[in-house]
Amino acid sequence: MRAVYLDEEGLRFRQNYPRPQLAAGEATLRLRLAGICSTDLELIKGYAGFQGVLGHEFVATVEEVEAEEDAAWVGKRVVGTINLGCWHCSECAAFGPEHCPTRTVLGIIRRDGAFADFLTLPTANLLEVPESLADEEAVFTEPLAAALRIRQQITVSPSDRVAVVGPGRLGLLIGQVLALAGGEPTLFGRRKESLELPEKLGLDTGLIGEAASDAFDLVVEATGNEGGLAESLRLVRPKGTLVLKSTFQGRATVDLTKLVVGEVRVTGSRCGPFAPALRLLEQGAIQVKPLIEAEYSLREAIEAFEHAARPGVRKILLRA
Amino acid sequence: MRAVYLDEEGLRFRQNYPRPQLAAGEATLRLRLAGICSTDLELIKGYAGFQGVLGHEFVATVEEVEAEEDAAWVGKRVVGTINLGCWHCSECAAFGPEHCPTRTVLGIIRRDGAFADFLTLPTANLLEVPESLADEEAVFTEPLAAALRIRQQITVSPSDRVAVVGPGRLGLLIGQVLALAGGEPTLFGRRKESLELPEKLGLDTGLIGEAASDAFDLVVEATGNEGGLAESLRLVRPKGTLVLKSTFQGRATVDLTKLVVGEVRVTGSRCGPFAPALRLLEQGAIQVKPLIEAEYSLREAIEAFEHAARPGVRKILLRA
Repeated sequence: MRAVYLDEEGLRFRQNYPRPQLAAGEATLRLRLAGICSTDLELIKGYAGFQGVLGHEFVATVEEVEAEEDAAWVGKRVVGTINLGCWHCSECAAFGPEHCPTRTVLGIIRRDGAFADFLTLPTANLLEVPESLADEEAVFTEPLAAALRIRQQITVSPSDRVAVVGPGRLGLLIGQVLALAGGEPTLFGRRKESLELPEKLGLDTGLIGEAASDAFDLVVEATGNEGGLAESLRLVRPKGTLVLKSTFQGRATVDLTKLVVGEVRVTGSRCGPFAPALRLLEQGAIQVKPLIEAEYSLREAIEAFEHAARPGVRKILLRA
Repeated sequence: MRAVYLDEEGLRFRQNYPRPQLAAGEATLRLRLAGICSTDLELIKGYAGFQGVLGHEFVATVEEVEAEEDAAWVGKRVVGTINLGCWHCSECAAFGPEHCPTRTVLGIIRRDGAFADFLTLPTANLLEVPESLADEEAVFTEPLAAALRIRQQITVSPSDRVAVVGPGRLGLLIGQVLALAGGEPTLFGRRKESLELPEKLGLDTGLIGEAASDAFDLVVEATGNEGGLAESLRLVRPKGTLVLKSTFQGRATVDLTKLVVGEVRVTGSRCGPFAPALRLLEQGAIQVKPLIEAEYSLREAIEAFEHAARPGVRKILLRA
C-alpha cells in the first residue's frame, strides 16, 4: 500500500509499504482524508524519535474487523482516538490511555499512523461520523478535541479576559472553542495578515506587540515557539492561568520570576474528547472549512509537508 | 540608626542611616530579631533592582504609632506582613495587596526593610506574637506563612505522594507543613549530609539522583536553581502538580515537552497567611529552632550574608 514514512533518513513516500496486520479487537481502516498537524512537523525534526508511518488526524471507512462482535462497524465512516493504553496500569485506570506509560500513539509513538491507504485501530477507539458532516469537516475532529481539552481542565468563565497567542491551525480552533464559553477571546498574531482569517471567523484580534501586559485572566499559548511563550507569560495577569497547548520541540527558556511572583498557574494540555468535538461540528458551532489551505494526494505528501511547514499556512489535507 | 543597605555599589553596613518617618496609619517598630532569606541573597545579585534597607523576616516591638486609635499597639511584640497595596485597584479588591501592581514590599520593592534598628509598617500589617513564642521562633513566621501558601493554593490529600526538592531553609518548613496533611512527604537533596537535619525532624528523605521519575503526585521545587527545577519536573507524574516555591533569578530553561505531554500543572507560589503560621508555631506543630545555623549582630551583617550564601547553610539571624 502507499504510505508516508519517517525514519532517520527523513520523510519519504513509499509505494509498497506492507499493509498492517489486524490484532485482537482491531479494525482495518481505509483512509479517506487526513490532516497534517504541527506535531507531524515536529516529528520530522526528530521530536520523540518516531519511526514509521506518520499521521493521526484522519477520516476513514472501516474495511475489516478482527472480532465477530464488531461486524457492525464494517463499512462505517469513522474517526478514531489516537492513544492505546495497556488498560492494566494505575494510570489507565485513573486517567485512561492518554497517560499510560507504555502507551502507543497513532503516528506518534511506536504505532504506524494514518498517512497510508490502510491503518489499524481497536474498535474501542472508533467513533462513527454523523452523515451530515463532510470528510473535510470530520478530519478536524482530533485537533478540535485537543482544543476542547482546555475546557475539561479549567473553568472558563464568560467574563474571563481570554487571549489566544498564535492565530494558526490550532489557535483558530481554540479561539472558537473558547468563544463558546460566552466571552470574547482575542486572537493575537505577529503580523496583520495573520489576523484576517480569525476576523472573518468573528473573533477579536490584536497584534501581539501591542497587547497590554498582565491583562488577561486566561492565556492559551498556541505558537509552540519560545517567543510566543514569552509573550503569553507577559500577557497573563498575576494569579492568572497559562495553558500550553502546542507541542514544543524540547526545552525552552522561561521567565520564572513572573511565574513565581505573579503566582501564575501553568497547565500543559494535550488530547481531548472526540464525541463533543463531533457534536459541535454537527451543530455547526465551529467553522473548520475556512481553515483548509490546500489538499494533496498521498503521493504528493513530501510537497504537502513542505507547504504545511511554511509560516502562516493553515491546514493541509492528504487525500487517499 | 544602624541599617544594612543595598545599592548599585553593593551591600554595606551603615551606622547613621536616617530613621524612617511615620506615615498615616503606620507604626514605628524597634527590631528585635531578623532572618536572612534566599530572596535577600537574590536581591544582592540584582534581582528586582532593589535599593534600600534589606530584610523582610523580623520580630520587633512597637515603639510608636501615628494614629491615636492605634495606641494599644505600643509596646507589643509583633511580626508583620510585607506587602503594602494601594487598596484602590481591582487586584487589591480581588486578591489583597500581594498582587497590587503598585505595591511596595518591605525590603524587596521600593520600601526600606527590617535589617535596621527601626522600620515602619501600617498597623494593619501587624500581628501580635503570642507570649509563649520565643523571638527565635516568631522570626520564622514569614517563611512559614510562605510554606503554608501552598495549602491555600492546592488541595494536598493525605494519600498524595509528595516530594520536596531542596532540603534548605524553606524546604524544611515546606516538608513539615505538607506532613501536617497526613501524608509522608519525602525531602530530596543532592548530598547525604543535607538529609541529616530533615531526618532529625522526622521527615522521609532521599537522594535526588536516586529518585524515580514520574513517581510523585505533588512536587515542590525549593532549590531556586535550574538543576533543581529539571529534577522536580522529572519527579512529577503525568497530570501531577509542580509548585515553584523559590525565587528564581530571572530566566531558566524548562523541558516543556514533559509539561505539555504529561499535562503537568505548574503553580508559582509566594507570600502566605501569617495568623495560621503563628498558630502552628504556638501549637509546636512546626519545629523551627533546629533550622537556626547562627546569629550575628546587625553590625556583623556583611559577614552574616557571606555565611548565609554558603551551600547547605540553614537560617542566619540578625540580632538588633
